[in-house]
Amino acid sequence: MKETMYQQGRMARQAARKLACMSEMEKNSALMAMADALEARMPEILLANREDLKEGEKQGLSAALMDRLLLNEQRIQGMAGGLRQLVELKDPVGETVEMFRRPNGMEIGKVRVPLGVVGMIYEARPNVTVDAAGLCLKTGNAVILRGSSSAASSNGVLARIISEAATGAGMPEGAISLVPFTGREAVEIMYRMNGYLDVLIPRGGAGLIRSVVENSSVPVIETGVGNCHAYVDDEADLDMALEIVDNGKTHRPGVCNALETVLVHRAVAPDFLPELEKRLGDRVELRACPESLKHLRGAVPAVEEDYATEFLDYILAVKTVGSQEEAMDHIARYGTMHSEVIITENYSRARAFLAGVDAAAVYVNASTRFTDGEQFGFGAEIGISTQKLHARGPMGLKELTTYKYVIYGSGQIRS
Amino acid sequence: MKETMYQQGRMARQAARKLACMSEMEKNSALMAMADALEARMPEILLANREDLKEGEKQGLSAALMDRLLLNEQRIQGMAGGLRQLVELKDPVGETVEMFRRPNGMEIGKVRVPLGVVGMIYEARPNVTVDAAGLCLKTGNAVILRGSSSAASSNGVLARIISEAATGAGMPEGAISLVPFTGREAVEIMYRMNGYLDVLIPRGGAGLIRSVVENSSVPVIETGVGNCHAYVDDEADLDMALEIVDNGKTHRPGVCNALETVLVHRAVAPDFLPELEKRLGDRVELRACPESLKHLRGAVPAVEEDYATEFLDYILAVKTVGSQEEAMDHIARYGTMHSEVIITENYSRARAFLAGVDAAAVYVNASTRFTDGEQFGFGAEIGISTQKLHARGPMGLKELTTYKYVIYGSGQIRS
Repeated sequence: MKETMYQQGRMARQAARKLACMSEMEKNSALMAMADALEARMPEILLANREDLKEGEKQGLSAALMDRLLLNEQRIQGMAGGLRQLVELKDPVGETVEMFRRPNGMEIGKVRVPLGVVGMIYEARPNVTVDAAGLCLKTGNAVILRGSSSAASSNGVLARIISEAATGAGMPEGAISLVPFTGREAVEIMYRMNGYLDVLIPRGGAGLIRSVVENSSVPVIETGVGNCHAYVDDEADLDMALEIVDNGKTHRPGVCNALETVLVHRAVAPDFLPELEKRLGDRVELRACPESLKHLRGAVPAVEEDYATEFLDYILAVKTVGSQEEAMDHIARYGTMHSEVIITENYSRARAFLAGVDAAAVYVNASTRFTDGEQFGFGAEIGISTQKLHARGPMGLKELTTYKYVIYGSGQIRS
Repeated sequence: MKETMYQQGRMARQAARKLACMSEMEKNSALMAMADALEARMPEILLANREDLKEGEKQGLSAALMDRLLLNEQRIQGMAGGLRQLVELKDPVGETVEMFRRPNGMEIGKVRVPLGVVGMIYEARPNVTVDAAGLCLKTGNAVILRGSSSAASSNGVLARIISEAATGAGMPEGAISLVPFTGREAVEIMYRMNGYLDVLIPRGGAGLIRSVVENSSVPVIETGVGNCHAYVDDEADLDMALEIVDNGKTHRPGVCNALETVLVHRAVAPDFLPELEKRLGDRVELRACPESLKHLRGAVPAVEEDYATEFLDYILAVKTVGSQEEAMDHIARYGTMHSEVIITENYSRARAFLAGVDAAAVYVNASTRFTDGEQFGFGAEIGISTQKLHARGPMGLKELTTYKYVIYGSGQIRS
């Protein structure tokens, strides 16, 4: 298994060298060919997907997981459409970020280049196979994909179809490949593929991400866990606060930019909390601190653990605080540096929140649900980084590149 | 030990929150105070250094290592001077890298912020204690330093002096601290301090760096190993090539941007190699491939291993190649993505080399010895990254920062 995967790594590395020199037009042709192939070979895909679904049923997967696994004509067209959208986006590779001349006459340019070989480890959703391959190809990266066993059959067919289409359109062999093993052992081999993989990007639940971060010696971009807070200041527009908290919690509770805790200033808690309860109704379970409970009828007492939990569900933790500082201390303690919002009309408080909260996205008076590549206008997204190195927040095409210095000399030596 | 270090981590984390909001003026005052304190307390430093030197002698350290350990009045003034130079450099924190408005009216800014808490693991040279602390402070980062046992006494006094001076000048307690343990165990604890440390930067030999990369779950910026090549094209100005190869090899052989291998096009090998041998004289041992040996009198046969070795010494590997492609394949195989140079007068070859070689710094007609923060005009340098995530090549102040998105809304919610 190890030998097979290292061979795959060598192929990807060779492909990456060629991909780095491909023009945007060449890469775009390949993306179009991949999209066409997905549509042309739909029956194959559906057949393979049916196998995964049958197996999932046997193993008693939940309805939600079965739905994530399911492919149909519309979803396949969605994947193809995603690839075609990538064609429209500007390729960041080759951009000269800056260029300057040194006193000795050397000119130094900082030029955007692909990362090289990207390793993706992901769970369930077979569309990630296509999305990730498309993003990597557009940015001149080779990709080694490792999906979960539950989608093995779908992923296998999808990867084969797009990889064949890409090669047919002039992309190098090995530019897109799927790890043919679905056991844990294959993932552990990937963790140690330094020299073959330039970066590992895990996409999935908190457990998967933690495991990759803890065990990989290949550099990792951590994505996704979001324990997001809204702080309702005593100078907040309370109607606006209601809208933003409601939207953050209930628009799509299962995603990382959803709200998990609301912190309410003591001075407005008696007004705000009953309105919030009325607004959220039976849709959301409130878990509240003792002081907040006084203003809530149906809430249950919160335990410490609740403030540290990414519920990803119709549950909201509630806490009354005495000051903005207390709110910010709470966020520093329990937050996961994803998305945080203050609702206030006070200029200095807004400014202090923006400056003092350490998170990928810090908001004043807008829903945390906007932390998303599409919503930020990046056009596409490979994930949302919650770490600080390389990329933070929504990662689009640019974040799949690095840079190198190119130096134009005329015989300069150092003395 | 673990509890002590985690407590140190908590202190640093708290300090980082405060440092992130400090103005450049406040940070500059602290840097000046640190510089003054180093000069005022010279006798203490020299006394502590004498202890390290005595211990080093007992353990039979080499003359080179003893010299790296040695502090004298001039070197201490050099460290103080380095801190004062940092005052002159522009603080990158707070820079709005870009800012744009979304169709719904939200304004999104990408703002440079400190990384948070930086862990430095380094060997020998006690000046790293001061340099790293200065760079981190200037960029609003807290730093946890872990020097080697051979410099324990010097590092201890240096860290105490600058940390006291910083606190005296209004910096938060814990902004600069030294791990009080010098055993391996302390380093292993640092590897697992996710949540306390945002990044680990190792500075030292290849063994140290490999060990950190392989074992740390905290994100690492890999620095320093440089197996650098010069490719002398058949359209090279051979006099220029001689200068550049000589400079790359002999200007300072013990550093990472020194040349280790010269690749010579077959067409010019008979002219170039004898001249190179004459030029380098007895200063440099040449290890050459069979074809190159024909044109060299005093060279020894190279073995495969020589091409993979960062000699850091007066040794140069030599290989004759039949084409630029062969040279670039060799570099892709043996290079460490540090610095690579082509010497040529041919426009298309120069362009192909710049585009096709994957390294932090790719040169045409200039010495690889320029890959250095000072030489690139960054004013200061914390190391030279040879990885691709976050930062590549010389890392100055900017590379000690990350960014966050700040979003100015007026009640926007997602629908």
